[in-house]
Amino acid sequence: MRTIRLTLAYDGTNYAGWQVQPDRTTVQGTLEAVIEKVTGQQVRVTASGRTDAGVHALAQVAAFTTDSHLTTDVLQRALNAELPRDVAVLHVNEAADGFHPIRDALRKRYRYVIHDGSVRDTLRRGQCWQYVHGRLDVDAMQRAARALLGTHDFSSFETTGAERLSSVRTIYDLPVERGRAGGGDLLTSELAASDLVTVEVEADGFLYNMVRAIVGTLVDVGRGAREESWVADVLDATDRRVAGPTAPPEGLFLVRVEYE
Amino acid sequence: MRTIRLTLAYDGTNYAGWQVQPDRTTVQGTLEAVIEKVTGQQVRVTASGRTDAGVHALAQVAAFTTDSHLTTDVLQRALNAELPRDVAVLHVNEAADGFHPIRDALRKRYRYVIHDGSVRDTLRRGQCWQYVHGRLDVDAMQRAARALLGTHDFSSFETTGAERLSSVRTIYDLPVERGRAGGGDLLTSELAASDLVTVEVEADGFLYNMVRAIVGTLVDVGRGAREESWVADVLDATDRRVAGPTAPPEGLFLVRVEYE
Repeated sequence: MRTIRLTLAYDGTNYAGWQVQPDRTTVQGTLEAVIEKVTGQQVRVTASGRTDAGVHALAQVAAFTTDSHLTTDVLQRALNAELPRDVAVLHVNEAADGFHPIRDALRKRYRYVIHDGSVRDTLRRGQCWQYVHGRLDVDAMQRAARALLGTHDFSSFETTGAERLSSVRTIYDLPVERGRAGGGDLLTSELAASDLVTVEVEADGFLYNMVRAIVGTLVDVGRGAREESWVADVLDATDRRVAGPTAPPEGLFLVRVEYE
Repeated sequence: MRTIRLTLAYDGTNYAGWQVQPDRTTVQGTLEAVIEKVTGQQVRVTASGRTDAGVHALAQVAAFTTDSHLTTDVLQRALNAELPRDVAVLHVNEAADGFHPIRDALRKRYRYVIHDGSVRDTLRRGQCWQYVHGRLDVDAMQRAARALLGTHDFSSFETTGAERLSSVRTIYDLPVERGRAGGGDLLTSELAASDLVTVEVEADGFLYNMVRAIVGTLVDVGRGAREESWVADVLDATDRRVAGPTAPPEGLFLVRVEYE
């Protein structure tokens, strides 16, 4: 048996998330159906993590085992030909036996995009949080975010119901930026980039809804409802009820997953 | 009566173009229905030019006359509240009596976006030409485009059936670029920008399908099917049949319209 590693991009707008669910269109279900069509084999595809309904991926990593003899090139071409336009296979590689996309992941990076312009961005519908309550103070958000760097119990940023053994994670990087200074966005006008706030979070692992809870909390600071120092208090409380709201899914992108 | 000038952004994917057509959803028709709802008056909205089905606008300019007493601020808010998410009113201004968005336009600028990566861009579906036949030679396209700068009869780049009196236009600027060097696109990975080729055309006016015919012609050069010098021959022929194919609508964006 071969273990095949896939790198996937998808627009999550039209999917009920990654994970297979009865009577719902999911990325996993769509992919498994296409793999069966191409290889003739029913497989189970595992991803580095489940993305929720509406969440996007620039480079999700997934894997499955097969005894198909198709080369990785042929497999990539055939999968892309059969997949709907909002899912694409960026790379296909042979992985070592026993490669497991969740267990073997060392780091993951997410990006969250907020549009806080006074008028909605028509070309990014479903690909950002249209924040309509005024301008966010990005510098305050960036300073507040520093409290989250490093190794902590992130229970305050974990939606309950999850079944992970430990809530301790390490955040390596958490930049908050407006407009990516100097970055000319290719699709919108040059001015529109200044309406975009990005929050990126890189960590050794993520609890359920962790990025969205962090973003919701930082936005409470950015809109002036909370002091910057409040974020450290939220972290210390290890209680989801004290943090800010969960930011909506459509602003969230899985950017990359790192392995050995 | 007041003349109201609107600056509009829209994603043209779900519209049969700008112009009202029976039994089709158009941007003009959608806007006129919303203006009637907000002001109680039936109006005719005129734009700086008709965009075709699937073509987008970053800053289309349109105008209508009304004796409504709503302030421009209230009008903008009310229109944006009623419009679908893929159309937005960026600005509302009082215009001089007799302001005419087509006749008074001095210059217009369009952008055409081509994605020539080997795998489709899932997040730009409907917002670029997914060019799947290999890498385009952008330098050759840029050199070939120089022949089109200045004042010429652009009949070779005009879809027949249009009824304009003259096919003479002046192109002021026609840059062809890959990846907007240094421009970090906010939504895709940093690598993906290198898969994007943009062609921008600024002119004192445009013939029907002119940008798309120019792009189709430059792509024939970029893919190596034609010499760079061929573009000057196409221009001289004043015959649409000798130019390249019309590029698909989804890559086209109306960027801005300039008035006195």
